[in-house]
Amino acid sequence: MKKSETLLERPASVTKAATMKALVFHGPGRRGWEDKPRPVVQQPTDAVVRITTTTICGTDLHILKGDVPTVTPGRILGHEGVGIVEEVGTGVSRFHKGDKVLVSCITSCGTCRFCRKGMYSHCEDGGWVLGHVIDGTQAEYVRIPHADTSLYAVPPAADEDALALLSDIFPTAFECGILNGQVKPGDTVAIVGAGPIGLAALVTAQLYSPSEIIMVDVDENRLRVAQSLGASRIVPAVGEEAVRAVKAATHGAGVDVAIEAVGVPATFDVCQAIVGPGGHIANIGVHGSPVELHLEKLWAHNITLTTRLVDTVSTPMLLDLTLARKLEPRKLVTHRFDLGEAMKAYDTFSNAARERALKVVLQNRA
Amino acid sequence: MKKSETLLERPASVTKAATMKALVFHGPGRRGWEDKPRPVVQQPTDAVVRITTTTICGTDLHILKGDVPTVTPGRILGHEGVGIVEEVGTGVSRFHKGDKVLVSCITSCGTCRFCRKGMYSHCEDGGWVLGHVIDGTQAEYVRIPHADTSLYAVPPAADEDALALLSDIFPTAFECGILNGQVKPGDTVAIVGAGPIGLAALVTAQLYSPSEIIMVDVDENRLRVAQSLGASRIVPAVGEEAVRAVKAATHGAGVDVAIEAVGVPATFDVCQAIVGPGGHIANIGVHGSPVELHLEKLWAHNITLTTRLVDTVSTPMLLDLTLARKLEPRKLVTHRFDLGEAMKAYDTFSNAARERALKVVLQNRA
Amino acid sequence: MKKSETLLERPASVTKAATMKALVFHGPGRRGWEDKPRPVVQQPTDAVVRITTTTICGTDLHILKGDVPTVTPGRILGHEGVGIVEEVGTGVSRFHKGDKVLVSCITSCGTCRFCRKGMYSHCEDGGWVLGHVIDGTQAEYVRIPHADTSLYAVPPAADEDALALLSDIFPTAFECGILNGQVKPGDTVAIVGAGPIGLAALVTAQLYSPSEIIMVDVDENRLRVAQSLGASRIVPAVGEEAVRAVKAATHGAGVDVAIEAVGVPATFDVCQAIVGPGGHIANIGVHGSPVELHLEKLWAHNITLTTRLVDTVSTPMLLDLTLARKLEPRKLVTHRFDLGEAMKAYDTFSNAARERALKVVLQNRA
Amino acid sequence: MKKSETLLERPASVTKAATMKALVFHGPGRRGWEDKPRPVVQQPTDAVVRITTTTICGTDLHILKGDVPTVTPGRILGHEGVGIVEEVGTGVSRFHKGDKVLVSCITSCGTCRFCRKGMYSHCEDGGWVLGHVIDGTQAEYVRIPHADTSLYAVPPAADEDALALLSDIFPTAFECGILNGQVKPGDTVAIVGAGPIGLAALVTAQLYSPSEIIMVDVDENRLRVAQSLGASRIVPAVGEEAVRAVKAATHGAGVDVAIEAVGVPATFDVCQAIVGPGGHIANIGVHGSPVELHLEKLWAHNITLTTRLVDTVSTPMLLDLTLARKLEPRKLVTHRFDLGEAMKAYDTFSNAARERALKVVLQNRA
Repeated sequence: MKKSETLLERPASVTKAATMKALVFHGPGRRGWEDKPRPVVQQPTDAVVRITTTTICGTDLHILKGDVPTVTPGRILGHEGVGIVEEVGTGVSRFHKGDKVLVSCITSCGTCRFCRKGMYSHCEDGGWVLGHVIDGTQAEYVRIPHADTSLYAVPPAADEDALALLSDIFPTAFECGILNGQVKPGDTVAIVGAGPIGLAALVTAQLYSPSEIIMVDVDENRLRVAQSLGASRIVPAVGEEAVRAVKAATHGAGVDVAIEAVGVPATFDVCQAIVGPGGHIANIGVHGSPVELHLEKLWAHNITLTTRLVDTVSTPMLLDLTLARKLEPRKLVTHRFDLGEAMKAYDTFSNAARERALKVVLQNRA
Repeated sequence: MKKSETLLERPASVTKAATMKALVFHGPGRRGWEDKPRPVVQQPTDAVVRITTTTICGTDLHILKGDVPTVTPGRILGHEGVGIVEEVGTGVSRFHKGDKVLVSCITSCGTCRFCRKGMYSHCEDGGWVLGHVIDGTQAEYVRIPHADTSLYAVPPAADEDALALLSDIFPTAFECGILNGQVKPGDTVAIVGAGPIGLAALVTAQLYSPSEIIMVDVDENRLRVAQSLGASRIVPAVGEEAVRAVKAATHGAGVDVAIEAVGVPATFDVCQAIVGPGGHIANIGVHGSPVELHLEKLWAHNITLTTRLVDTVSTPMLLDLTLARKLEPRKLVTHRFDLGEAMKAYDTFSNAARERALKVVLQNRA
Repeated sequence: MKKSETLLERPASVTKAATMKALVFHGPGRRGWEDKPRPVVQQPTDAVVRITTTTICGTDLHILKGDVPTVTPGRILGHEGVGIVEEVGTGVSRFHKGDKVLVSCITSCGTCRFCRKGMYSHCEDGGWVLGHVIDGTQAEYVRIPHADTSLYAVPPAADEDALALLSDIFPTAFECGILNGQVKPGDTVAIVGAGPIGLAALVTAQLYSPSEIIMVDVDENRLRVAQSLGASRIVPAVGEEAVRAVKAATHGAGVDVAIEAVGVPATFDVCQAIVGPGGHIANIGVHGSPVELHLEKLWAHNITLTTRLVDTVSTPMLLDLTLARKLEPRKLVTHRFDLGEAMKAYDTFSNAARERALKVVLQNRA
Repeated sequence: MKKSETLLERPASVTKAATMKALVFHGPGRRGWEDKPRPVVQQPTDAVVRITTTTICGTDLHILKGDVPTVTPGRILGHEGVGIVEEVGTGVSRFHKGDKVLVSCITSCGTCRFCRKGMYSHCEDGGWVLGHVIDGTQAEYVRIPHADTSLYAVPPAADEDALALLSDIFPTAFECGILNGQVKPGDTVAIVGAGPIGLAALVTAQLYSPSEIIMVDVDENRLRVAQSLGASRIVPAVGEEAVRAVKAATHGAGVDVAIEAVGVPATFDVCQAIVGPGGHIANIGVHGSPVELHLEKLWAHNITLTTRLVDTVSTPMLLDLTLARKLEPRKLVTHRFDLGEAMKAYDTFSNAARERALKVVLQNRA
């Protein structure tokens, strides 16, 4: 993605800048918790935010494996977080120093053709840039370009654990899975993959009252969590066995909506095998390789298959429901660390199954 | 597809039945124009229609190649046509002997769960059955199950050539291509394949006033026809070359809607390479093998991919527009034969490129 | 509404017909529980159903007041009910003697242009006819025209109290109020009127997870019930005072959806005063006089106002959710009587406020 | 409408400002073509545009009659126009001096909750402000707040007459009439009122290929123009006579979409009398008084009634179609004047019927 100069960092000033601690990527397999210059406003539309809560995303682990070549060594990771506005540029009108804000994982300029139609994910001067092509939120401070349209005001007393899950995981599950899958009251929904994103899909699917939500995974702990979060049925299987179980559960009809929440060919295959005529396959997973699409069967099956990088257009609504306690994202938080323990937090999240970790939250208690 | 007894033919009566001429499939590569018993009403909801105009579909050629194993030897082919009601069962209330009717390629019972939500293609006692699992329309007479919901009344003086194209090809192109592709005013649309179905998509796309329609094919004659039918641009290429040309024509942005109108992996590949972020891939083609879907690129591209067997829910609307002369399906008719020349008509249609054939119409002048 | 002969009753046979008991309208203010001939199949598409549970609707009270001149003396009232199929015509294929069924308040032929697009309310040979222009369900037996598309199969053991509320009140509240109002997650909804239909709207609105549901009424008992059924706020006021309270509750913004659930100008006025820019006014109420629409304010307010006679297209879905216990219509049932006590049941329902009556159910324990 | 300081003009500088000519409102019935200070950038997000083409809107005549009390004496009128960017503030990133631009009649900040959901009409710091609460476009120069999201780039050689009609009248007709009315292929549409806005509705309705468009008006000249612009039928009548004619033309069924394009109770009455079951009434007219809505009939008619102040979200699409010559707004231009003849142009437009004036364009040939 070609980005304009708005997003690019200017060379460090020659005057001695204030420093801060941050989680830095140093190439595949290498990360450090170290001193970095504290970010400053570079463009009139920038804000600098002091991070009070951040979290680690599965994408961060992919970056560390070297799967995302657009992330270069030296980059501060992280695209989720809550904080306090520290400084704003002259072009920022909606936020002021001291405001508590939610950071969106998607930066939106608000004026390009994509932003004007609500597709912020493809913003010509934004999109997913934090912790990717500019420095991110796993740090004491972060610079947020286009602050007016990339931050959300939150009440001072709001629950930060819950909010941090609204930066990425909840809008992603909701927009890519539930909205794109067009889940509606009475539907039968299957979610393939019960990791954090699959569980967030499970929680947000219930906003539309499907009559059945089937969770497919092989991790028993995650399936237990799924049941406590409202799954009406669990399928502890993969591949053909999972397909048979879902088909049986739907008396052969297949599901109305199949949500792919892993990102590998095997789980996509399950989705295309279990979707019923007229149904939806909603892809959430980040895929690294092509999949085989069985058009020789599906051409006459009246299905709709969708993909999406989250636009975060639903963030204000999810925020409202969370503040009204009608949505409880914090239920996915299993571990909390101090921000200074970021290295240890990564160790835990990297062994999610063993540690029974879902979302790992980092709090800046300083 | 399991069908109830409603559709099945009863054993021939022992009394000598009246006979008729029909085009009969005798296994791969073998067809004949021969005597068959004239159909009679078998169920109260049946009608028998005397065919006055019919046509040959690409699907009929597939059947003759042996690609459709559900068609068994002895079957009368054909699922398109116009005719006069000859006889109705006691349960038929909307049609009477002497009514001129359009035969839908899709039989709909009107009462099953699929019919009640407008998905007639998957009717539990219908769907595509004519010239498939029951005898079809390339004959002097045809039995139509569920006549009330599978026939459409047309004025006695209506143009039969135009109407015959409303049995299948026009609703198919419109529903699978244009409606599913969500073509809207100002869109850039590419149609990959300029055969009859691609050209019908070209004509019906214009109902929504896209700003540009790009036709991709290698048959020069068909591209010339496409231009005369309203294509704003033609791309006489395949594969990577076609992709480059479409990308150039859209200044790199890709198209809003890519319509697959062939049914092979190569044309599907072009579609997934030219669709822009937020765009639609609408599959019309009948595919015989899986395709590779590049989810490793498309997962973040916000695309919608649809498949559909035509439901013919749009038939009344297309009929209205045709009768009002706002739609001119007959422009796709290149050849006309007498019904008795059905064998010769198949020869012509089987060599469509050489014969410059689009739709070949058979008229029963008897 | 002109109806074809399909719906009309044939003159009573000269042979002595079996009799039954029924609640009969005899002109304004006059009703009786008396002997009537037991209905028989008249058309091949008819079924006769033995009623096991029925209920009284506010519309029945309107009829008794003489507000519905299309109901003529001698008519058996009632358009809601559950029962057992007693007899079917030769054209009925989906139901058989002994099947337990839900009777829809809307009769649908399944083949007319309105039925084919899902607008059964305007069926050319149906619509609301039961207990209106043909005999209804407050009787031991009822004849159901177009049975295949006007009855719904239910399991033998299903809760009849709940089902009886799916004949009319629940689909009406859901389709006219929630679907037409386009309620969506996070919305602020106000329902003006907390009678049975308003409460059914309250219950079904929650299928879409609005963040707030405000109930407006002056009956304290009904508001208490509303709170127990999930209202997030109650406004015990009418007119300007109600408007001020709702405006205050929304910090001046107005509501996303205002649902009119009474049917008089005063409550409609509240709706148009509280709807916010871009909002919806969904009318459920049956109105007897025109209202004043403040276009001088609303022309620039980007609102959508809808009306609807229920189509009952949502009945299968509501039935699924009820059987899955995700929806509990029976919570609105406050009184139960034996069918033979129909006169007393009407007395109770006619004094709904004093009797704290919501839905009054009649059970045929015979 | 309370607007933030962003829109308000700062007191005139003490240094002698450059002057320009402008059409100034001086209270009901009084206007002048006079010297005014040339506008300058006041906020970083402002642009100053040199007007090359502008036009007069029916709303301007309403203002002159004193119907719009929010317009105060001294205000420069006009909210439509094309021009060249003269100066931009430091916060404007998408436009530069010398760019040719289309001015939108709606100012959009791009960041408020309404703008973020595409409802620019209700922008918290914009909406309709030009020629209303800040100075407008009937002048040599105009200041445009929130320029990045309130101007549209156009090619230097584009036809200015056509473009000037895209500032207001074409998006208004299209969004309030055609999009809100949900016009679709095959529909029967009636447009009540054949003034400029009704004719723009006629032209843009054709983007969706209705099978019939009926124009209702009593001005014979306008009906003739309507025919030349694609009306399939004209009804030279008002009131009950118009209703009877439309009903007859639709064989009693009523229209799918009735578009109100005048703004008085009488034309609204025609619309509610001619809409068929399941149909849409789309209001475009600016109403000064309440109307009587016949809910006693319409409650069961399944209609949708919409109102809207134009959001101009469709402007980019209409611009594309105009540049591609698929839409020809200039056909509505009947008179052209030099900008300096603005007083005479108003005289002509004020006598539209006698002068056979539709759109009157003012060109700044300086």
